[in-house]
Amino acid sequence: GEMAKLTQLVDNDVFRAYATYTTIVLLKMMLMSIVTAYFRVTRKAFVNPEDTASFGKGDSAKKYLRTDPDVERARRGHLNDLENIVPFVGIGLLYALSGPDLSTALLHFRIFAGARIAHTFAYLIPLPQPGRGLSWAVGYAVTISMAYQVLK
Amino acid sequence: GEMAKLTQLVDNDVFRAYATYTTIVLLKMMLMSIVTAYFRVTRKAFVNPEDTASFGKGDSAKKYLRTDPDVERARRGHLNDLENIVPFVGIGLLYALSGPDLSTALLHFRIFAGARIAHTFAYLIPLPQPGRGLSWAVGYAVTISMAYQVLK
Amino acid sequence: GEMAKLTQLVDNDVFRAYATYTTIVLLKMMLMSIVTAYFRVTRKAFVNPEDTASFGKGDSAKKYLRTDPDVERARRGHLNDLENIVPFVGIGLLYALSGPDLSTALLHFRIFAGARIAHTFAYLIPLPQPGRGLSWAVGYAVTISMAYQVLK
Repeated sequence: GEMAKLTQLVDNDVFRAYATYTTIVLLKMMLMSIVTAYFRVTRKAFVNPEDTASFGKGDSAKKYLRTDPDVERARRGHLNDLENIVPFVGIGLLYALSGPDLSTALLHFRIFAGARIAHTFAYLIPLPQPGRGLSWAVGYAVTISMAYQVLK
Repeated sequence: GEMAKLTQLVDNDVFRAYATYTTIVLLKMMLMSIVTAYFRVTRKAFVNPEDTASFGKGDSAKKYLRTDPDVERARRGHLNDLENIVPFVGIGLLYALSGPDLSTALLHFRIFAGARIAHTFAYLIPLPQPGRGLSWAVGYAVTISMAYQVLK
Repeated sequence: GEMAKLTQLVDNDVFRAYATYTTIVLLKMMLMSIVTAYFRVTRKAFVNPEDTASFGKGDSAKKYLRTDPDVERARRGHLNDLENIVPFVGIGLLYALSGPDLSTALLHFRIFAGARIAHTFAYLIPLPQPGRGLSWAVGYAVTISMAYQVLK
């Protein structure tokens, strides 16, 4: 029946690898929400008036409606994840279904995941350039390589 | 033939549920573009000079190049949707293909969709905290639960 | 075996068309990173202190931590891509699996891809309105049309 077919799809080694690494990078991206929230709370830097209501009313709360460098840095890292992980998830799915060798596919998925994790550390610490730029470029190149395989 | 296989995939109950709820939350996210445009037009708050050309030239148009709290609120809601609905769509697909019970899957999809709709109302009205925070956390927890099932 | 099934999925004409156009629009979205980086370097407008370290220390580097209209325009175009291409990729996959006619599906995919490419030109040149608004609306309408087909 159809469940058997689904099981066969999920049993395919390349697809399983795609599922694992996609889940890992998406969870990593989700972690950025926690990092941003952590900096908002510890730096007391909020953007919505309703978020500062517990600090009291009027000016005593209003002073916490401000931007903070660490919060903005975490938000930029999050947006950069969206810009790069969305293409990986979409193109990676099509690549996984295009029948690549398992070893080649694993190489793509692992380098991408490693590059994005390195990018997050490079952004948050922050590391001197070209640390962040290089980790971004590696993930970008992996996605281009998968796209080339899909279009071919 | 291959169409028969596709039909079998689409006939799978869990996959159909995934398709329905993914389409609903993506349409809800797309609605944020309309909400933002509505606030831009009614509040006369634009960001691109070419968007204010119909208000005349020079200073008479330039005064509408400004930020507005309602526009910015809608934009933050939209970005929060992207940050949370992208992981749901990606991880949810892999979860749907991992062979969960239909009732368990429906529970995940329905709670997520409900939480994100609640989050939008909490953001736009806005509701006092922890309304928005709680609805965000519920959707986040559902995605983590599906990711755990995929990785297992 | 399972690879045979995957090959059948990939051999399906509608799915192949989806794969091609999804890859094209995701690559186009990725190009926005290059456009933004190009404007950051040529306009010398950066946001991270570590990115200006090569310009020297102190005030000689700090003056390049600024916003630039061209950089911000490219960034808005990139975010608009995310907001519109993510729903296309998600809803388009479900639409492709729902068994549409090849000619109808190609019409949807081609109009969407054309509209998003036109949107990018309209944003970056920039073209007078309603050029950008119209190209946005066409892509939006195509996605709504696919969503209607999926939910039906």
